[in-house]
Amino acid sequence: MRLANWDTEENTVLNVEKRQESVVKPTPILPETPAPAALKPAPVRVDESSRDDRPNLGMGDDLANAFATTQRVQVDEKAMINCRADLNQLIPFKYVWAWEKYLLARKNHWMPDEIPMQDDITQWKSEGILSEEERQVVKRSLGFFATADSLVANNIVLGVYRLITNPECRNYLLLQASEEALHTHAYQYCIESLGMEESELFNMYREIKSVGDKSAWALKQTSLLTDPHFNTGTLASDRLLLENLIAYYCVVEGIFFYCGFALILSMAREGKMINTAKQFEMIMRDESMHINFGLDMINQIKQENPHLWDAEMQNTAIRMIKEGLELEVAFAHDTMPSGIQGMNVELMTAYLQYIANRRFASLQLPEQYDAPTNPFPWMTRTIDQQKQVAFFEQNVADYQIGGGIQWDKGDW
Amino acid sequence: MRLANWDTEENTVLNVEKRQESVVKPTPILPETPAPAALKPAPVRVDESSRDDRPNLGMGDDLANAFATTQRVQVDEKAMINCRADLNQLIPFKYVWAWEKYLLARKNHWMPDEIPMQDDITQWKSEGILSEEERQVVKRSLGFFATADSLVANNIVLGVYRLITNPECRNYLLLQASEEALHTHAYQYCIESLGMEESELFNMYREIKSVGDKSAWALKQTSLLTDPHFNTGTLASDRLLLENLIAYYCVVEGIFFYCGFALILSMAREGKMINTAKQFEMIMRDESMHINFGLDMINQIKQENPHLWDAEMQNTAIRMIKEGLELEVAFAHDTMPSGIQGMNVELMTAYLQYIANRRFASLQLPEQYDAPTNPFPWMTRTIDQQKQVAFFEQNVADYQIGGGIQWDKGDW
Repeated sequence: MRLANWDTEENTVLNVEKRQESVVKPTPILPETPAPAALKPAPVRVDESSRDDRPNLGMGDDLANAFATTQRVQVDEKAMINCRADLNQLIPFKYVWAWEKYLLARKNHWMPDEIPMQDDITQWKSEGILSEEERQVVKRSLGFFATADSLVANNIVLGVYRLITNPECRNYLLLQASEEALHTHAYQYCIESLGMEESELFNMYREIKSVGDKSAWALKQTSLLTDPHFNTGTLASDRLLLENLIAYYCVVEGIFFYCGFALILSMAREGKMINTAKQFEMIMRDESMHINFGLDMINQIKQENPHLWDAEMQNTAIRMIKEGLELEVAFAHDTMPSGIQGMNVELMTAYLQYIANRRFASLQLPEQYDAPTNPFPWMTRTIDQQKQVAFFEQNVADYQIGGGIQWDKGDW
Repeated sequence: MRLANWDTEENTVLNVEKRQESVVKPTPILPETPAPAALKPAPVRVDESSRDDRPNLGMGDDLANAFATTQRVQVDEKAMINCRADLNQLIPFKYVWAWEKYLLARKNHWMPDEIPMQDDITQWKSEGILSEEERQVVKRSLGFFATADSLVANNIVLGVYRLITNPECRNYLLLQASEEALHTHAYQYCIESLGMEESELFNMYREIKSVGDKSAWALKQTSLLTDPHFNTGTLASDRLLLENLIAYYCVVEGIFFYCGFALILSMAREGKMINTAKQFEMIMRDESMHINFGLDMINQIKQENPHLWDAEMQNTAIRMIKEGLELEVAFAHDTMPSGIQGMNVELMTAYLQYIANRRFASLQLPEQYDAPTNPFPWMTRTIDQQKQVAFFEQNVADYQIGGGIQWDKGDW
């Protein structure tokens, strides 16, 4: 069975077609976000007669929940949210896409110290190789990411995991959270190797506004779910969970990460900070899989709970992705006001609009920007090249050692 | 720097000595557990003047907590529990033991499907190779573990992680939770490969009392922490967190897992179910590291909060480990009432008492059983052999492919 690649440009149309059976068809909505006051909420289509009194197993008393019944779990009892089947039992599988993505991600083992940093250390410590703006690009990118992956891990562990009531998805979430820890480890490894002032980099989200604004936007979403009184099971709270998933998979991992990735990879194309870029490339491969998994979760929840995905919710999703893009453009402007070789704010804005359009399409929402072409086709090629590794190679270390990734060849 | 191996027999004395600087000295207590009523709680030695009004960052509003101050994090602000320093910043490191254990564990990558199962499938499907009691041993072991590792992962993610207010420990916890997902995956792979009735195995903890009793004992501990009103910061609640850590690291992972491990490894010594045993061996290596990390966490919390570790708490720890041992002996008796080749309930009880004594010693508590020698020295050798892999090999797959682990040589 072929996996859906929500995030791969070439496969967008194919996948939308392939997903028709299992995901709700795109609902036509207004192309521009109207004022929320102009919209009436869609009627809630929950069938009250199908409710049962068994506890919602995502929360509450774990002991009582586990032993609420001794009946074996049936596949059709399983659900993404508000499930009443035992969550401690992985089998029987319901969501094959989740288990296959888990297996694929589990094979992507890599370690930051497998990538030697010496060339970058030499460049970073030399005078005249990197411009002041290039230095700022490296510092701001590492500074944002130094805490950003912790925010993602915490959002999963402290917020999302409890509310996603499906064991195969939870297995993926455990792996994803561990990969976020690995990424924080990789950024720490870069920062330490380059001899940067660690406290400046790790505290950057509290010192530089354009970095902090992105983090605050993400943290606000986490705060909603980690409120001890928050629970799913109502129209409003189920929507807040969906909003959180869109915020993190489509905006935080789906937009906020891409400016930093593109900046560092662009510098590597000019022969600068190639080892740091290799770390970013490994991370980008993981993140691309996270986005694909997150889109599957979002679309599956939409399919199972179509009443959540009304015009108001669709407009909220559009608004969130637009907000994310604006924050990311502000970050790009603040980080490289004059631009660096091969990269400037105008090109980055066009790239982010192109990426944002892909996020809209993956959610079956109309594209919101006039950005039909990717100004950085080498980014897509890099992601696709990495996906081939994921599919055909067992371990990224083998691939690295085999020298498959050649930053300095200039053939992309 | 050499890592403390709390779980390795040979190093117990050495490590207790080495840990004197950073861990409180063992407090003398009564050798037998008296009735709690006879004990007066130790006076709480919290210095009220040192309290501050900043929020406890383990919980509450993530956005407000992160931006409560813009000051850079100082090492001496960091603490295992009830910390007020920003938890999104990995650096500066305080607990080097936690980071080094994280790095070591991160290198232990393995995949269940790297271990071919064909020989076991042949044995399982043949008549006359396995006795009925041996078949029950395999089913009960896989049945218990099929859900047990999910309980551990959920305890970390839904309970412990929020309350451990240290980023380097949280990085390890994220990795550990992901390893629990890998173990559930490995058990599922064994159960599916052997063609067992999956719903029977995964639902076993709700159908077989001796399996369910262990799971219920664990789940009760998780329920205390996942109560939405639970928070650390008081003597009683800080003790409940410590109790949970002792329950999971010393009893669930430290005792409940060892009967199943010893049973399957014992069968492999007789040439039976060798591939299943190889899976168990890989898992046992991970679990041994979890125990070591958990003991470090517990002892660090004790050191930082000595008022928690009074006679009442020490007696609680002793009672819990004794309860765990009794449940494990009951499981052994129910699983192999007549015994199998090379293994019976009497030997298993002696082994569990020996293991329990090691848990007591690691907590600086007096040994409670007259069990000076290990009846299964091959278990210790297996763990130690695996530790060498962890220290000197980068990837367990290399080791497996190199054929370093020879179950059928009979040299242990």
